[in-house]
Amino acid sequence: MNGMTAQHSNHTGNRYPPRGGLVPWFVPIAGLVLGAFANPGHTASPAQVLAATMAADWRTPAPDQTLLMELAGGRKVVIELAAPFVPRHANRIATLTRAHWYDGLAIVRVQDNYVTQWGDAEGTHPLPTGITKMLAAEFSQPALPAGVKFTQLPDRDAYARHVGFAAGWPVAMEKRNGPVWMAHCYGMVGAGRDAEADSGGAGELYAVIGHGPRHLDLNITLVGRVLLGMEHLAALPRGTEALGFYQTPAERTAIVSARMLDELPAEQRPAVEVLRTESAAYQAWLEARRNRKDDWFLHGARHIDLCNALPPVRLR
Amino acid sequence: MNGMTAQHSNHTGNRYPPRGGLVPWFVPIAGLVLGAFANPGHTASPAQVLAATMAADWRTPAPDQTLLMELAGGRKVVIELAAPFVPRHANRIATLTRAHWYDGLAIVRVQDNYVTQWGDAEGTHPLPTGITKMLAAEFSQPALPAGVKFTQLPDRDAYARHVGFAAGWPVAMEKRNGPVWMAHCYGMVGAGRDAEADSGGAGELYAVIGHGPRHLDLNITLVGRVLLGMEHLAALPRGTEALGFYQTPAERTAIVSARMLDELPAEQRPAVEVLRTESAAYQAWLEARRNRKDDWFLHGARHIDLCNALPPVRLR
Repeated sequence: MNGMTAQHSNHTGNRYPPRGGLVPWFVPIAGLVLGAFANPGHTASPAQVLAATMAADWRTPAPDQTLLMELAGGRKVVIELAAPFVPRHANRIATLTRAHWYDGLAIVRVQDNYVTQWGDAEGTHPLPTGITKMLAAEFSQPALPAGVKFTQLPDRDAYARHVGFAAGWPVAMEKRNGPVWMAHCYGMVGAGRDAEADSGGAGELYAVIGHGPRHLDLNITLVGRVLLGMEHLAALPRGTEALGFYQTPAERTAIVSARMLDELPAEQRPAVEVLRTESAAYQAWLEARRNRKDDWFLHGARHIDLCNALPPVRLR
Repeated sequence: MNGMTAQHSNHTGNRYPPRGGLVPWFVPIAGLVLGAFANPGHTASPAQVLAATMAADWRTPAPDQTLLMELAGGRKVVIELAAPFVPRHANRIATLTRAHWYDGLAIVRVQDNYVTQWGDAEGTHPLPTGITKMLAAEFSQPALPAGVKFTQLPDRDAYARHVGFAAGWPVAMEKRNGPVWMAHCYGMVGAGRDAEADSGGAGELYAVIGHGPRHLDLNITLVGRVLLGMEHLAALPRGTEALGFYQTPAERTAIVSARMLDELPAEQRPAVEVLRTESAAYQAWLEARRNRKDDWFLHGARHIDLCNALPPVRLR
């Protein structure tokens, strides 16, 4: 059986491409130039588009803005921080990570179709010298950061008039001149907060594990995106207490360590790359996703939702 | 800490309501009439709206259109079939269930941010007498089934001009007079198919476990929705083969049994109820979700996405 049904042994990367933003690590990515992106009347599948990308179509997340979190059992999660949109929070998280402050903390909450949350659940883990818990919220920016291009999606969005990508991040605006905010899509990471807006000091972080809870936009500071290892956060047992908190400490998954990539020896850094959302290749991929030409598909959607458009990630 | 962050012991149902469509089983639901729904300038939280519903605001899924699937370890999943929109597939699934045909099969595929899939992966499990694998597709209906009311959402949707709920199901239309189709939202269940449109004979079923893959709409037959136990399908380990298939049979989760509710003694049937999407209570709940008045929220989204609007489910 094919397509959405089970397979014997006839999976092929072209016919059944990954539909999400994450290129499975086992899919070989060719660096061939096929010139396919110049042709608006494409006939390629999303996987074929990715196979035809050039090295320059991909960016390497900055090692000083990307962290590797290792969970118990060797499960590794790579998170890129959205420094252009949340400079204070990116700096705070990098500082806490470099202090090895997250080491030994745990995943404390998994609420189905919502979030997985980790960090200092009890608020008792002493902060490094010079750091206080409060941190001014960064729910939005008054306008796009200087030099950042907005790649608008023509597609409708329930929550905002203008949506698209900027510096690789999913963003929304009600007016084109701002303010601009990041969107709660699957795999996005935020900083939990108390009732006060400025209380999201990154002592606790969460990742979205369900349908984008966009009503959280502008209510809490998103700080980045899980680039690799999202399955380790999404497949955890759900907590049975209110809001998905675990009932007992024993149910928690320990954070063995969290390190900025530039803390690691070069050979230990995951060679992760993200498709540039300013590239023609990204536009071709979007178009292939809007109108699937894979054999299995019978109907082209002609549209794509912002949260189904997060740029693909690959290992070099 | 409050809100999105971890709690000590101050969780309250009002302040931190379930944000999704599923009312946790531990939340007491009062049957009080507060008259809140008559007031468009609401100040209630979604949980408060639900607490003020009346018994008549809820419907009990028909026992002959709802099944209980028990997985290894006693994990129970309740699925309602969307008979008004997919009469052939609902009938086929009920027939296979009553033949106890799914018993002993397994979950064979879990692809992150996409689907969990179960059934006869190898296509070798003999079908009951009189049933052939092929079944005419039910991707859409020419128009709303007779007598079914459409509760339209005023909110924008990326994929269709008109979206809302009909007989409790999330539906989309490009034109108001049809065709009408069900939408791939978190928790919706479909019938896997081969390359041929009519090959989705319900030998394999899948549930959506990520951001709504709406590009599957009109490409494959949705058959119903997981009402209870969705966490048992969403928290499974992801498969490491292409498309999230498990590499070995040992990784699969066994289906102990699947039964239509009317096959079970009355005391074994889960007392599940779904908020009527035609009710004023549902409209009040939608409005409370669009503009959260919970203390924690600082900004009202004013909109809601179709897949964030699936009607709440509760245990009576």
